[in-house]
Amino acid sequence: MDTPIKVAIFGGTGQTGSLIVDGLLASSTNFEIFNITRESSFHSASNEKLRARGVTVIKADTKGAKQDLVEILQGIDIVIAALHFNALLDQVTLARAAKEAGVGRFVPCNFGTPGIRGINLTNDLKLDILDEILTLHLPYTVIDVGWWSQEALSAAPLPSGRTSHWFLERMRIIPGDGNVKCAFTSTADIGPYIARVLADPRTLNQKVLCYTDVLTYNEVVDIIEEESGEKTQKIYKSAEKIFEDLAAGKAALEANPDDWEAKFKVIMNQYYNSYGLRGDNTPQIAKYLGYLDFQELYPDAKGETMRMVVQNVMQEGLKANSSIIH
Amino acid sequence: MDTPIKVAIFGGTGQTGSLIVDGLLASSTNFEIFNITRESSFHSASNEKLRARGVTVIKADTKGAKQDLVEILQGIDIVIAALHFNALLDQVTLARAAKEAGVGRFVPCNFGTPGIRGINLTNDLKLDILDEILTLHLPYTVIDVGWWSQEALSAAPLPSGRTSHWFLERMRIIPGDGNVKCAFTSTADIGPYIARVLADPRTLNQKVLCYTDVLTYNEVVDIIEEESGEKTQKIYKSAEKIFEDLAAGKAALEANPDDWEAKFKVIMNQYYNSYGLRGDNTPQIAKYLGYLDFQELYPDAKGETMRMVVQNVMQEGLKANSSIIH
Repeated sequence: MDTPIKVAIFGGTGQTGSLIVDGLLASSTNFEIFNITRESSFHSASNEKLRARGVTVIKADTKGAKQDLVEILQGIDIVIAALHFNALLDQVTLARAAKEAGVGRFVPCNFGTPGIRGINLTNDLKLDILDEILTLHLPYTVIDVGWWSQEALSAAPLPSGRTSHWFLERMRIIPGDGNVKCAFTSTADIGPYIARVLADPRTLNQKVLCYTDVLTYNEVVDIIEEESGEKTQKIYKSAEKIFEDLAAGKAALEANPDDWEAKFKVIMNQYYNSYGLRGDNTPQIAKYLGYLDFQELYPDAKGETMRMVVQNVMQEGLKANSSIIH
Repeated sequence: MDTPIKVAIFGGTGQTGSLIVDGLLASSTNFEIFNITRESSFHSASNEKLRARGVTVIKADTKGAKQDLVEILQGIDIVIAALHFNALLDQVTLARAAKEAGVGRFVPCNFGTPGIRGINLTNDLKLDILDEILTLHLPYTVIDVGWWSQEALSAAPLPSGRTSHWFLERMRIIPGDGNVKCAFTSTADIGPYIARVLADPRTLNQKVLCYTDVLTYNEVVDIIEEESGEKTQKIYKSAEKIFEDLAAGKAALEANPDDWEAKFKVIMNQYYNSYGLRGDNTPQIAKYLGYLDFQELYPDAKGETMRMVVQNVMQEGLKANSSIIH
């Protein structure tokens, strides 16, 4: 067997992190995985499950001393930061430690939509982290995956409730006229796609947009209605309303920077603008921003299309509804 | 003859702008050139010379109304901003006007060393402009040329004075130990290189580092001494002293943001750090930052090497010294 590629993931039991660990474990590439976790979670059920699957769990605090992280990262080839939104800035210390430890590739916590500075607070934070990485001359790969296909189902909730286990209130609306294209990746493919990108020397010091579908929200709703045979109700949010809410959120946030509801309002309306009006979450704009295109890198990759996702989510929903314990 | 590529240059009579115009006029590509100039310079000797060479001179103010610029830029394929350092922020309006006019390629005023945010005030400003461009989804090409080879001669002034017409006090010192590589382009090649980049569809929405030589300052001095047969005196500036002066400049600038001497001190020491200590001005780091490599794009390109530059500058110096009027 090849010498394994040693991967240290921060947040391997989290929402995105666990998808990535699944992908690395299932990969044909020989990844040796270390999940770096807080002391308080060291014996958690999730970490026990990871151990049972061959993952080494290591205690460390991303808010702790850099030197401790440097020691843990000795000999590690790839560091993946799969952190909670509130911990994004911890990556400054993480990146410095990774540089000092001689890590071969740092994967910052992106895993979202392509970002342009000044459009969206979350993406600005991610761009700040990338600047920190570049300042260090730290080898890196930025990986974005667009929107999760499953999240898009919230734009057309089925009366039968078969997709309600994936319902997210913030994704209920369709920005603008619903005719702007978006890139989507199924949660089933995020891990395998990322594993493929990380095994590939061509993606070193590059940004990559992974995606399976490129669809407008109106097209997504059509697919949902076709596959379900149900009629749904579309709720459009106009550009005017998006900018109005954005301005109101900004004003509230300025008055009180700790107003998390206002911050959420700002960020969501900024996202609506970015993916729903501007069309930033597309392979075309990603390429314009210097991203490599996953589909061009791996033309043989076969992910779950939106149509398959709708079918699978409805199946899951049926099962969940017919069992007493979900 | 092919349909000409219509190029509007802002600052075509300036230091870098005139080199670019020379390159465009000498190119085998059919460029139709419009020099956009202030009303006060409309009848200047420099603009008269441009007219005599077939350049159309147009009046406009980069600090004026956007709509006036939009009208001027109708039908223009490429906009080149070759502005004075103090006018870099005028590019915000310029870029917006170019977007509105449907310009096919915007070339911001870079033409320097590759930049990473947070290292250098000048490069930060250039990165801010690039962000503005990206926000607009405006087609662009960032072109950097490293240091001018001629400027490097200041690190080893010849006792004979044959290179003194190129002497720049700020380039007299050698940062660090002088063993860090730098990319250099002769002033003779800046125009032709840029013309080549602009005629190439592969460079659209890309950053390109143009260069001929990659040399350390110690190697540059060796070449100067070999070619001149003269001994020169090297003045090294240590990393400690660079950071000390940088901190002093920053403190003075904070006390008085209009202190231009302090600003200059900050910027120059930031440059010493970037190119002289960090090694940012190299094809290797440029590639890491996502730049295309001029030498890889055009392996047949033959520019003036540092050795040729030294010879030519010495020849010019001899001529200048032997004539009454320079």
